[in-house]
Amino acid sequence: MPKLVRVIIGSKSDQKQAEKILEYLELFKIEYDFYISSAHRKPLQTGELARNAKAEGIEVIIAGAGMAAHLPGVVASYTELPVIGVPFQGATLSGEDALLSIVQMPTGIPVATVAINGGKNAAILAAQILALKHKEIEMKLIAFREELSK
Amino acid sequence: MPKLVRVIIGSKSDQKQAEKILEYLELFKIEYDFYISSAHRKPLQTGELARNAKAEGIEVIIAGAGMAAHLPGVVASYTELPVIGVPFQGATLSGEDALLSIVQMPTGIPVATVAINGGKNAAILAAQILALKHKEIEMKLIAFREELSK
Amino acid sequence: MPKLVRVIIGSKSDQKQAEKILEYLELFKIEYDFYISSAHRKPLQTGELARNAKAEGIEVIIAGAGMAAHLPGVVASYTELPVIGVPFQGATLSGEDALLSIVQMPTGIPVATVAINGGKNAAILAAQILALKHKEIEMKLIAFREELSK
Amino acid sequence: MPKLVRVIIGSKSDQKQAEKILEYLELFKIEYDFYISSAHRKPLQTGELARNAKAEGIEVIIAGAGMAAHLPGVVASYTELPVIGVPFQGATLSGEDALLSIVQMPTGIPVATVAINGGKNAAILAAQILALKHKEIEMKLIAFREELSK
Amino acid sequence: MPKLVRVIIGSKSDQKQAEKILEYLELFKIEYDFYISSAHRKPLQTGELARNAKAEGIEVIIAGAGMAAHLPGVVASYTELPVIGVPFQGATLSGEDALLSIVQMPTGIPVATVAINGGKNAAILAAQILALKHKEIEMKLIAFREELSK
Amino acid sequence: MPKLVRVIIGSKSDQKQAEKILEYLELFKIEYDFYISSAHRKPLQTGELARNAKAEGIEVIIAGAGMAAHLPGVVASYTELPVIGVPFQGATLSGEDALLSIVQMPTGIPVATVAINGGKNAAILAAQILALKHKEIEMKLIAFREELSK
Amino acid sequence: MPKLVRVIIGSKSDQKQAEKILEYLELFKIEYDFYISSAHRKPLQTGELARNAKAEGIEVIIAGAGMAAHLPGVVASYTELPVIGVPFQGATLSGEDALLSIVQMPTGIPVATVAINGGKNAAILAAQILALKHKEIEMKLIAFREELSK
Amino acid sequence: MPKLVRVIIGSKSDQKQAEKILEYLELFKIEYDFYISSAHRKPLQTGELARNAKAEGIEVIIAGAGMAAHLPGVVASYTELPVIGVPFQGATLSGEDALLSIVQMPTGIPVATVAINGGKNAAILAAQILALKHKEIEMKLIAFREELSK
Repeated sequence: MPKLVRVIIGSKSDQKQAEKILEYLELFKIEYDFYISSAHRKPLQTGELARNAKAEGIEVIIAGAGMAAHLPGVVASYTELPVIGVPFQGATLSGEDALLSIVQMPTGIPVATVAINGGKNAAILAAQILALKHKEIEMKLIAFREELSK
Repeated sequence: MPKLVRVIIGSKSDQKQAEKILEYLELFKIEYDFYISSAHRKPLQTGELARNAKAEGIEVIIAGAGMAAHLPGVVASYTELPVIGVPFQGATLSGEDALLSIVQMPTGIPVATVAINGGKNAAILAAQILALKHKEIEMKLIAFREELSK
Repeated sequence: MPKLVRVIIGSKSDQKQAEKILEYLELFKIEYDFYISSAHRKPLQTGELARNAKAEGIEVIIAGAGMAAHLPGVVASYTELPVIGVPFQGATLSGEDALLSIVQMPTGIPVATVAINGGKNAAILAAQILALKHKEIEMKLIAFREELSK
Repeated sequence: MPKLVRVIIGSKSDQKQAEKILEYLELFKIEYDFYISSAHRKPLQTGELARNAKAEGIEVIIAGAGMAAHLPGVVASYTELPVIGVPFQGATLSGEDALLSIVQMPTGIPVATVAINGGKNAAILAAQILALKHKEIEMKLIAFREELSK
Repeated sequence: MPKLVRVIIGSKSDQKQAEKILEYLELFKIEYDFYISSAHRKPLQTGELARNAKAEGIEVIIAGAGMAAHLPGVVASYTELPVIGVPFQGATLSGEDALLSIVQMPTGIPVATVAINGGKNAAILAAQILALKHKEIEMKLIAFREELSK
Repeated sequence: MPKLVRVIIGSKSDQKQAEKILEYLELFKIEYDFYISSAHRKPLQTGELARNAKAEGIEVIIAGAGMAAHLPGVVASYTELPVIGVPFQGATLSGEDALLSIVQMPTGIPVATVAINGGKNAAILAAQILALKHKEIEMKLIAFREELSK
Repeated sequence: MPKLVRVIIGSKSDQKQAEKILEYLELFKIEYDFYISSAHRKPLQTGELARNAKAEGIEVIIAGAGMAAHLPGVVASYTELPVIGVPFQGATLSGEDALLSIVQMPTGIPVATVAINGGKNAAILAAQILALKHKEIEMKLIAFREELSK
Repeated sequence: MPKLVRVIIGSKSDQKQAEKILEYLELFKIEYDFYISSAHRKPLQTGELARNAKAEGIEVIIAGAGMAAHLPGVVASYTELPVIGVPFQGATLSGEDALLSIVQMPTGIPVATVAINGGKNAAILAAQILALKHKEIEMKLIAFREELSK
């Protein structure tokens, strides 16, 4: 199966939160690639990762960041693929800064925002989107939901 | 073309915000149905609308609500389709109550949250998701993004 | 004495907060049953617990949840019994998300909200409501208040 | 039918919010009395109103106030009757001050808090509590809920 | 020297914060008495402490409390002496609840509010007020301010 | 009677809020002087007003400001007189910025903070402080409180 | 005099706020150019404007935006020139979203943030920076500060 | 090289945050002096430090403070040099008090505000400003940005 999801986080320090995303993508047997690429420190590389995603077969991008969390919005500005944003809790505020920086996007460029530190739900949402088209992911998702309700 | 999106709001008083969603779905020529069905006042009907959506051919549900905005989460609890949540600004708080009630979903049941009063972006996000599978929506989306960047 | 109070929490991880509720119900010698039933992961079971409560002799429901705390409102939507909601503090925000998700209910379906992590007060409030009708609870409540004021 | 509910607000300027409470008590044909008695400007009279309520046959007290809204908590400190608190939105903050001042009560003295400016729900909650004991209010409540779900 | 300041806190659990107040009163050699008396659990005793203060020679009251911190406002409602309020940080919110509950008093009954956990400043403010009338406290205050500026 | 209170606001645009202070000082027949002197635009003049106040017979200073409301704290840094701070609501935030900027003073330099736009209470608090020493103000205050409680 | 400041805002709807910036730049006789270029809708053009600024002789960039205000941070990611960020108040939240999105930048890429809707101060700050190097702007600035203190 | 930056913090307890500033100034080989001088406890000394800075060859001032963080604004009121403000997180609130106290400056006296505990970025911003005029700092800055993007 080709890689369908690209996961990007802005900083090595968010690796622990990123692992929640990857763990759950693996649960659904979704192939992915994973990059640490700051929107601010590496804008050109980040732009490339977003712009090239569709041509490389990627169907959903998950981007996670903390503080003034621009990464998901910046990624969304370079692609028409659905972008899922995960606000990470930073060292000083409780994650409210990242949440507002990700969810309050202007008209035209939405980011599908999940809960603060909600990496698992980002992966599940990706599975829900991909399940519309990929039968095997749909099967995994149905099984997951059945498991959940027990 | 069959109906691909179900739009649900919780209260007649949110009709004006709902119209932003419908207007933008029409922009992308996406067929939809539209219900006013409160999660609290009509829980059974709301549950039906969510549970039956997939079998009726719906692929994405958009749910908008204000205050203790449970509607998107309640809808998501009854379907494995992707659910997009739109927080509506209420009469007393600035919409922060609706935003937190929608975005802070527990692990297992994500809601793809957009900005407060962000109905237009909810429709665009639906188009982005559907474009993965529906060529004609992808074409509309590409045209929309080109227009946007001018 | 029959069971008069149903206690429902949404997640095993909130057990510690739930114990405050149970401890204080026992203080007033109020019989209760206790369920862990997520509004989102088990919507049908949760609906049943709420819908059947009255017929089973329950007079007050206490529901506690964290984050986008829909459980109390969802329970209230299925019963005309008084529902007491307890916001639990989550891992990221300080409980403000749960408080707003519980207290900001729309007209028609109130939830009697107590303080964040206020499980003890939820039980006391249940005792105050039941004392209107149940003499032996009223006696316990009067004794409790006398003790409190010393 | 005797008076079962006492409604107290802290200031004449909140009369408009109080009317929502009274209107809905009348909907349920619940007899009530109504006082404007500030917790701060008339502490003794307010204390009397709370302390005497039970002996006068009152079963539920509804107290509404804005800003540093102490009234519901002060009333609750003088009675073991259930006290419902309604936070009123003030001139400067969005009602968050009143909400926190009412809901964050310490262990021992709960206030059953409803939404900001949620006077209608305060009356409905009173009806739900009284319905446990008063058949005719239960009938009204069931009819109300049926109406609501249409 | 007679007792000029009455210090009241609402709960034994706030003793550590209270000690900051007492320590600084002693720094200025201001005589005081100290009570733990909850506004909610012991409303009558708390009312007495406030009402009798002036006749007992008290000139300033310092009241500290957390959560829905009604104590300073309740005390102020029973006396025309200046009341200094200290918001204490509680277990769940960051002290914002106590701050708003103390500072947002309605017209007629002010509380002189200091910073969250600002017990030391409450004592200094008391010294500033008393220094207007008590020469020996004025001398201590001037020495304190000189020390501070070094 | 000599001038006992100095009122300082930071900007002409806050004149309407200042008038609440002056109106209530007049109610208590307290003589005052009044200055518009920004802490930021006229730091030296503002410093002089604070530093000279005591020598000119002033006993209480009331300072009101909006936004990053430094005026009360700056004034307090130049005098050991009690300083009452009034947060004014600005054009963008709801006054929370001014409240936090005034109340959260560091140890050593307290500001007696009143409610947002609470100019009337600032004057009443000044009266309460002055009444400890000035019999005629005490008489006015007692009359005011009696009037209030009717 | 060459153009020293580049002003960029993200949306035509913020033009009124932008005019405050331009008006004050003109006050200091600072030459500028002005662009409306959304970080999200025109990421490439926005990147160019930032990347080319230094080579075109620009010394300071002022960027203003509302909601999830990524523009100043995105601009800063493409240039080592100092970037001044102005949070604009949006339609739903009070500007707190824009403030946090601009000020909470990660280590490496600062944005010099001014008050919400603080366009005038952005221009003054630009003047303060340029005055270090440009004598004629220093003269204007000194005159401005003198005027201010009158 | 002469001293170009003056770093001032308000309290010894913020030394750890200050070291981030100093460490990064040294990274850019920028000469600086460093003072602990409270705006409130030592207003005259703080005023001197600000007023004399320009004449002593200082070109940028960095001021950091917590709680009601007046220091940066007070410093800015005494100098036309650019002042960079760093909000420090205090013991009770999450740093939001310091952020609002620093960033929400009134028209005329801007403070260039960076993130909460963002001392490193304050130093980088100082380097960006100084680089406009000082070639060797510009070289260091370019190298830093290149390093960053790797």
